[in-house]
Amino acid sequence: MILTVTPNVALDITYRVDQLIPGSSHRVRGVRERAGGGGINVARVLHGLGHPTMILGFVGSATAAALTTDLAQGGFAHELISVEGPTRRSVAVVDSSNGAATLFNEPGPRVPAATWDDLEARLAARLPEATALVVSGSLPPGASDDACARLVRLAVAHRVTVLVDTVGENLLRAAAAGADIVKANSSELLDTTGLSDVTAAATALRRRGANAVVASLGEAGMTAWTRGGCWRAALPAPVVGNPTGAGDAAAAALIGGAAAGAPWPDRLRDAVALSAAAVLQPTAGSFDMDHYREFVPQIVVEEHHAPGLDR
Amino acid sequence: MILTVTPNVALDITYRVDQLIPGSSHRVRGVRERAGGGGINVARVLHGLGHPTMILGFVGSATAAALTTDLAQGGFAHELISVEGPTRRSVAVVDSSNGAATLFNEPGPRVPAATWDDLEARLAARLPEATALVVSGSLPPGASDDACARLVRLAVAHRVTVLVDTVGENLLRAAAAGADIVKANSSELLDTTGLSDVTAAATALRRRGANAVVASLGEAGMTAWTRGGCWRAALPAPVVGNPTGAGDAAAAALIGGAAAGAPWPDRLRDAVALSAAAVLQPTAGSFDMDHYREFVPQIVVEEHHAPGLDR
Repeated sequence: MILTVTPNVALDITYRVDQLIPGSSHRVRGVRERAGGGGINVARVLHGLGHPTMILGFVGSATAAALTTDLAQGGFAHELISVEGPTRRSVAVVDSSNGAATLFNEPGPRVPAATWDDLEARLAARLPEATALVVSGSLPPGASDDACARLVRLAVAHRVTVLVDTVGENLLRAAAAGADIVKANSSELLDTTGLSDVTAAATALRRRGANAVVASLGEAGMTAWTRGGCWRAALPAPVVGNPTGAGDAAAAALIGGAAAGAPWPDRLRDAVALSAAAVLQPTAGSFDMDHYREFVPQIVVEEHHAPGLDR
Repeated sequence: MILTVTPNVALDITYRVDQLIPGSSHRVRGVRERAGGGGINVARVLHGLGHPTMILGFVGSATAAALTTDLAQGGFAHELISVEGPTRRSVAVVDSSNGAATLFNEPGPRVPAATWDDLEARLAARLPEATALVVSGSLPPGASDDACARLVRLAVAHRVTVLVDTVGENLLRAAAAGADIVKANSSELLDTTGLSDVTAAATALRRRGANAVVASLGEAGMTAWTRGGCWRAALPAPVVGNPTGAGDAAAAALIGGAAAGAPWPDRLRDAVALSAAAVLQPTAGSFDMDHYREFVPQIVVEEHHAPGLDR
């Protein structure tokens, strides 16, 4: 069973419009609504790949019913801790004329320290049955800089492989706490480390304590810096669509591969293929199995040598 | 007391973003949420002008609490009939860099025929205490083409002045049922009548049975075709902002003026001033009293002669 923690659960709303024209009024042709946020999207993809999952996180009490009903209907095991207020919404507007998605992400409700403690207790109770842990997504307002690191320490203490996909001080501290895999997109890595080069940023995170760092480079694919070597993987041609869930699909592939003990080049190949298959779907957490299978053999994986750290 | 009917009540969500860039991801800096939809926005403006109001309409049961709480907190008398499903949402994204609003309007839940009958019964019970009635906004999916006309007939039977602000077959039939004032923007009038000239469209609606037609021409102001004459009113210079609530503010001014027996040139002046004051506010149903007072003396009202119909 793979555990996923979503510190900032979202109600993902997807609107389909004929064409997005800033400053004008749009009739929404289609509305889709479901539970989202990093860890939940990762669990959706893992679920689609056949992995048993368990979702943990916080949910705003005012709109909890819509989210838990959606997760229950999808057959997702979950344990969401209620916090006061509505769950944050994330609105994706998909332009039918070109497939492009425009996103609006609410900040989310404040989670009290005692509720974070509750999450840690529940996570500790679940870790003995877990093969891996993913902590993914933005942090709710008021979260401690150490919030993710504390979850990582629990996983490390239970010898459970842990992947962290977030940004800022929380990502730095999660690396220092010994996260197995730290994943972010290249601009998030640069923002987090304050460096201007992705390789330097990845090296800095490994020096802090992360075992491996994976950077997604958008259309240019992904790079992994690990103890066993460094690899770059990409599709020969980029795909166009909704990039919202691409990072979550990559995280699902990476943790699924880690849980299965797959070699890094295969994990990275899978991450790029699943990511591209997710871009072609309008909603985060979805991917098309046919596209995924079609992409896997097309991915080009190259080994390269990163300066600074020995393997 | 002025009654307002909102057949398609909305939960109005306003997002403030730094700059709206299609195809990119936006952090929402501010979220405001409140009950909206044509008749509710009209009632808000009337309320702001000091008129007692009563709101009638349908509300999706799944999200009714958020709406009724908002209306109760604002001190708005209301009687919303519950229908299955969530209330439709209307999302306005306000770009802080230029003040422009981009709107996304959901279609809304289906209202069964029996629930429409319930609305008519409640309206009939309220009409004896009413000085005027406004029926405003889009129709929910599955509404009869005769839905607004039936409400108009009830008002006419009770000798209550009725203004209708909607589009399509419902607007045509509301005119035929003898609506006192039919209000729409110029493109809605053209779409509704299938004509290519606004004056011809207004004349067609008056021939069908409407006593007066008011067309809003956006920045070019408003024109009224009435039994007592035809007038055009405009501000010397257009204002830039969120046009969402402008039509509702105009409707409020027109019905307030009708209820008070004000002459048409004054009603139109008020409608243009209130409309412009509403454009300067980020949310529908709001207006700034100082702007409104400042605009009133600036409005230029001109009489003109419409062909076709004698007064």
